[in-house]
Amino acid sequence: MKIGIIGLGLMGGSLGLGLKHIKFVSKICGFDHNLSHCEEAIKLDLVDEIVTFNEIKKCDMIFLAIPVEAIISVLQNLTDIPKTTTIVDLGSTKEKIIKSVPKEIRENFIPAHPMAGTEKFGPSAAIENLYHDKVVVLCNMSERGDDHKNRAIQIFSHIGMKIVFMDAIAHDKHASFISHLPHALSYALANSVMGEEEPKSILLLAGGGFRDMSRIAKSSPIMWTDVFKQNRKNLLNSIELFEKELGKCKQIIKEENWEELGKWMGKATTLHKIL
Amino acid sequence: MKIGIIGLGLMGGSLGLGLKHIKFVSKICGFDHNLSHCEEAIKLDLVDEIVTFNEIKKCDMIFLAIPVEAIISVLQNLTDIPKTTTIVDLGSTKEKIIKSVPKEIRENFIPAHPMAGTEKFGPSAAIENLYHDKVVVLCNMSERGDDHKNRAIQIFSHIGMKIVFMDAIAHDKHASFISHLPHALSYALANSVMGEEEPKSILLLAGGGFRDMSRIAKSSPIMWTDVFKQNRKNLLNSIELFEKELGKCKQIIKEENWEELGKWMGKATTLHKIL
Repeated sequence: MKIGIIGLGLMGGSLGLGLKHIKFVSKICGFDHNLSHCEEAIKLDLVDEIVTFNEIKKCDMIFLAIPVEAIISVLQNLTDIPKTTTIVDLGSTKEKIIKSVPKEIRENFIPAHPMAGTEKFGPSAAIENLYHDKVVVLCNMSERGDDHKNRAIQIFSHIGMKIVFMDAIAHDKHASFISHLPHALSYALANSVMGEEEPKSILLLAGGGFRDMSRIAKSSPIMWTDVFKQNRKNLLNSIELFEKELGKCKQIIKEENWEELGKWMGKATTLHKIL
Repeated sequence: MKIGIIGLGLMGGSLGLGLKHIKFVSKICGFDHNLSHCEEAIKLDLVDEIVTFNEIKKCDMIFLAIPVEAIISVLQNLTDIPKTTTIVDLGSTKEKIIKSVPKEIRENFIPAHPMAGTEKFGPSAAIENLYHDKVVVLCNMSERGDDHKNRAIQIFSHIGMKIVFMDAIAHDKHASFISHLPHALSYALANSVMGEEEPKSILLLAGGGFRDMSRIAKSSPIMWTDVFKQNRKNLLNSIELFEKELGKCKQIIKEENWEELGKWMGKATTLHKIL
């Protein structure tokens, strides 16, 4: 099976590395509109070959590892692929992408969200085991052709992923809490510190907690602006729920109700019983 | 030199382990008002011996590895130690603790904040290299006796810590941003998810970002209620600055000003140039 990967950054590059040792993958072709990414991808051996967009269309399976707005526009240029070609997107939002799929390729299209990533980006960020032991969410699978479904499940399970089926609307709502809100918080935390008079003196004290909380504030603004745009409504809702929770904490501290604060913190610790 | 450690949880227990191989440490004595902690500490070999509070007073150097409110009350019972005994507290706040030190032991007292920890607590959480390669902040050192200062610097550098001197007021302000605010955010994020209808379905999607952001929401509510209490004013201020930052993000998303969102995120990414 010939695989095509559009987008050779962290996600696409890591996929190339992860697919290398799978027996039924015969060749991995890469495409990226950024030429220096193409050069880097070959140098780092992320894909076997760089091909044109027209050549990518001849692959048996095409992965879209690009920002979510770009996924929507590329999909409009894939309507002429053979019926047997499977397209998989790896975007962090699902509802808008699914709605944008041209009807000619609706059966070919597998909407996937691998819950994997790091704060780094570009081909040099690619790592072989990025997807290993992580969850991949596949959405609205009843609308897909059986062969395409099976192919996607086979590939994802072979790179070590745990498969979860979910409705796109539920996915986007859940993802806004579990992924998009944390990114907003991390960016806001970083900006709070950077807005202070002496960020350097403050950061002198940074321990593991702050490093963890600010890590994803390194993430690509291009990628995340797109995600926030596509999941705007859910994200606004989860930000508001978070604001209420933080407001509760602030009010308790203002009122010096330390017993209540202990309870509020205690409730938070129960998360880890189900995580 | 005989060392006494009051409090045999994560911080005190890890200190015991870290001190084991230092040549000038002859014995490590432990005290904890929780008897099962004492038993566990001996079983895990965190200290050489469990002693009474009166015996601890005979050590050359006494570390207070207990919640910050308990530090203040224990200090009141240490006024009868010899002039040569050094007391070091490891609390996350400094100003209130320093103010509470009885004048008889002001020269003996070293206010220290090791920027180290994990979300776990209790003796079983202790790890040998907890302090290694981390920063320890020593506050208001001009008020301390030279011998005590030198002893503290010697010990902290021998367990691999990087020493930073800072005024207690600046420390508490900086710590509210770098440590106390992140804890409030992590607890609030955990509570936001736990307040939803299907926290389990949401957590199915948890990737590295969410795990990192919610990790410190496991931390001990007892310890952190005390910290929030003692650093109330600074923490309220940093929560308010954070709220403004998050509010800015929300407003930009509401207005669908995606160019501005990219800039806001871009500003946040610059944090990592100085971290």
